[in-house]
Amino acid sequence: MSKVITKQEQDYSKWYNDIVVEADLADHSAVRGCMVIKPHGYAIWEKMQQALDKMFKDTGHVNAYFPLFIPKSLFEAEEKNAEGFAKECAVVTHYRLKTDPQNPGKLIVDPDAKLEEELVVRPTSEAIIWNTYKGWIQSYRDLPLLINQWANVVRWEMRTRLFLRTAEFLWQEGHTAHATKEEALEETKKMLDVYAHFAEHFMAVPVIKGVKTPNERFAGADDTYCIEALMQDGKALQAGTSHFLGQNFAKAFDVKFANKEGKLDYVWATSWGVSTRLMGALIMSHSDNNGLVIPPRLAPTQVVIVPIYKGEEGLKKVSVVALDIKNSLQQKNISVKFDDRDTQRPGWKFAEYELKGIPVRIALGERDLENGTIEVARRDTLSKEVIKIADAAEYVEKLLEEIQSNLFAKALARTQASTHVANSYEEFKKILDEKAGFVSAHWDGTPETEEKIKEETKATIRCIPLNNPQEHGVCIFSGKPSTQRVLFARAY
Amino acid sequence: MSKVITKQEQDYSKWYNDIVVEADLADHSAVRGCMVIKPHGYAIWEKMQQALDKMFKDTGHVNAYFPLFIPKSLFEAEEKNAEGFAKECAVVTHYRLKTDPQNPGKLIVDPDAKLEEELVVRPTSEAIIWNTYKGWIQSYRDLPLLINQWANVVRWEMRTRLFLRTAEFLWQEGHTAHATKEEALEETKKMLDVYAHFAEHFMAVPVIKGVKTPNERFAGADDTYCIEALMQDGKALQAGTSHFLGQNFAKAFDVKFANKEGKLDYVWATSWGVSTRLMGALIMSHSDNNGLVIPPRLAPTQVVIVPIYKGEEGLKKVSVVALDIKNSLQQKNISVKFDDRDTQRPGWKFAEYELKGIPVRIALGERDLENGTIEVARRDTLSKEVIKIADAAEYVEKLLEEIQSNLFAKALARTQASTHVANSYEEFKKILDEKAGFVSAHWDGTPETEEKIKEETKATIRCIPLNNPQEHGVCIFSGKPSTQRVLFARAY
Repeated sequence: MSKVITKQEQDYSKWYNDIVVEADLADHSAVRGCMVIKPHGYAIWEKMQQALDKMFKDTGHVNAYFPLFIPKSLFEAEEKNAEGFAKECAVVTHYRLKTDPQNPGKLIVDPDAKLEEELVVRPTSEAIIWNTYKGWIQSYRDLPLLINQWANVVRWEMRTRLFLRTAEFLWQEGHTAHATKEEALEETKKMLDVYAHFAEHFMAVPVIKGVKTPNERFAGADDTYCIEALMQDGKALQAGTSHFLGQNFAKAFDVKFANKEGKLDYVWATSWGVSTRLMGALIMSHSDNNGLVIPPRLAPTQVVIVPIYKGEEGLKKVSVVALDIKNSLQQKNISVKFDDRDTQRPGWKFAEYELKGIPVRIALGERDLENGTIEVARRDTLSKEVIKIADAAEYVEKLLEEIQSNLFAKALARTQASTHVANSYEEFKKILDEKAGFVSAHWDGTPETEEKIKEETKATIRCIPLNNPQEHGVCIFSGKPSTQRVLFARAY
Repeated sequence: MSKVITKQEQDYSKWYNDIVVEADLADHSAVRGCMVIKPHGYAIWEKMQQALDKMFKDTGHVNAYFPLFIPKSLFEAEEKNAEGFAKECAVVTHYRLKTDPQNPGKLIVDPDAKLEEELVVRPTSEAIIWNTYKGWIQSYRDLPLLINQWANVVRWEMRTRLFLRTAEFLWQEGHTAHATKEEALEETKKMLDVYAHFAEHFMAVPVIKGVKTPNERFAGADDTYCIEALMQDGKALQAGTSHFLGQNFAKAFDVKFANKEGKLDYVWATSWGVSTRLMGALIMSHSDNNGLVIPPRLAPTQVVIVPIYKGEEGLKKVSVVALDIKNSLQQKNISVKFDDRDTQRPGWKFAEYELKGIPVRIALGERDLENGTIEVARRDTLSKEVIKIADAAEYVEKLLEEIQSNLFAKALARTQASTHVANSYEEFKKILDEKAGFVSAHWDGTPETEEKIKEETKATIRCIPLNNPQEHGVCIFSGKPSTQRVLFARAY
């Protein structure tokens, strides 16, 4: 079966879906809104997890695991958080099925097995975790508590899209407890920096660090910091959030500690997370009409070697050299696949690895052997070069670094070119409709104005950038005075 | 707070629970039957995951992720499997909560948000995976499909115990699809070997490989292979299972493939899994009245260095040498923690690391510095030795290997000493009551006899060992002829 990808310029949304499905990243499942993450997609997610997990551990965090279910009475303890997530909660009400007496071979929910208290499938774990922390924290010696969890969560979304918005998704959620407000704030910002570093240095996705308006805050947070990225179609995507939770959860769950002077005080909290949504950001930052493009640092396979030969004898000859090259690359910690399957032709393999986004492809034919050369193709620019076999390892090592920086540079240039300034509401709407991208504009600081702009244009305030220059102006919508510009965009 | 561990000989079950809780491995949660895996416990689980994941990948498997939920109609498709798990299924029936009109600030399940079809929280994933495989498999070229998933599963157990039996647990489940029966059988046994290798070489837990009787088979399998280990109290623990599923799931989900000749046939299947239950096996194989004992290959921290000093100046002096030693150990890929906290005394630290099972402890005092020596204590035997600082790295490296083999050797000797032969039902019952352990006895091969022995003695057939010698005899219970002995035990 030949795999056909819709062109970006034809239908970006369909293009995205085609890439996800045809490059074997994920697929829809039989469960409404839930996806299957296929091996190729999961392998990229594993690379993301490894890089992030190392950064979390290097900053002093440890992993743990908390229950999937949250009893309703705990879930509702922090009221704002509960209110924010109540509408999208999957709820377990029974703990047993039984044979349908009307219909042998079929099962029904056993009405005698109704739970006394319903269980919410975690949409986020603050409630269950802070209820647990209550038992772990007595004194300042128990602080800070720096814990992360890799887990699945469920948010019942009405309109779902693979990776971007699914009922179940995978993520990590950090939940930390601190003795002081300052320390908690520092942690919130530190983890935002970790996310920004990961996005830019591993995903090659440039991000804007900022803080959310109260309207867009995490339910239960005093402040939500975020990284925002711009996709190829000019829509923004929130790629990670880090919340300063104040003492809200400590108060809801009565978590106090004795400080050095023996005085009791509520604990300060943060939480922060990134999810499989990052896969969507990755795809919509770099990929093209030929398929997926993976930055080398996140590519499960960085180099593929495709032999071109006739007959068994030919394959043998080529294989000796190919395995030599594979070996020399592996010694440089480069992950290589030598695809010597005889069930598929080289042309088919070229297309397949292009579709799947493998950063570098080496083609090696019998004639090349005579010349002592190989053909090296890079996925990002689709350009090819013939190089000497002896230079292969060093050349490819450098090339992978070059691809990584080139992808970032391209995405950065695109983001910069798509960041506009608007000084009137007319101009603002015109930019959104004609150019899309980020629009930097003055806003009067009220939720009402924000809400109305959203209603009329579908653009939301993505963030107030950190270290935002303070500048007097007037709100593009209300004409009221404003002290700074904020970043608007239509968003995923 | 001093941590008190019940003595094994006093109450083994209470001892187990004390170890789990006091060594910070896991704790009960606010959710009935669900545990919190604490950082120290999770770090050991991560080491297990890493070792297993590498072995899975080295044998050609890839990871993927399938939905948490299974629609009831899919769940019931393979009847035996459905019947086997129906009684312990958590069921999602609603997708929304709303504010309780009677009780502001409280939430109730929104009756308007009832799902058309109930969703089962996966107790195991054969149903959702085989429903997915239907779309992935058309021809022999798509086979074999060798996929593993790391996930949480839920089985509503009435009586739970930390790690051993919890409503939610973490596991991996491999699900493979093959063109022939022979290949599927080979895979089933290969993965059993992987589990046995992991248990013996990483966990230092000797296991018996065998096959289950039909009574004890996985619901939906044609054959269940298992590894069985013997705990310190003489009870057996099933540590891993590998199922040959025949064509049962392929038939239930109509998964056919075209073979090389173009003929359609049902696909052959296997599934195999190990879970956080392994943590229980680890604890009950090696730990003692002083706390946890972790085999070096699974220890997140293999060596701890505790400085003994007076005043800041003393700490400075000792630290220079301690950091040197730490460095030399790290160069040998040994994970080391230097605990220079001034909030706790050395004696407290000694007890703490003993409790937490760190394999090797190095104590380093000011007087030692003068002599150029350190004190090295091993957790398994609790013995200490004074060695030269210059020899530290080499000595500790060898010591870790020695501890690993010593733990296995001790567990093996214990298992062998607890494996008995019974030739009459009287003898059988006497051994179970007085010695416990495995009892090798003749059985007539009928489920009825197996069931009655279980009723009367609580002992089950753990397995029919692989390569079991064939020997004529009479069933200890029925007196009917038997062709081989099988392994009985009371089990976790």
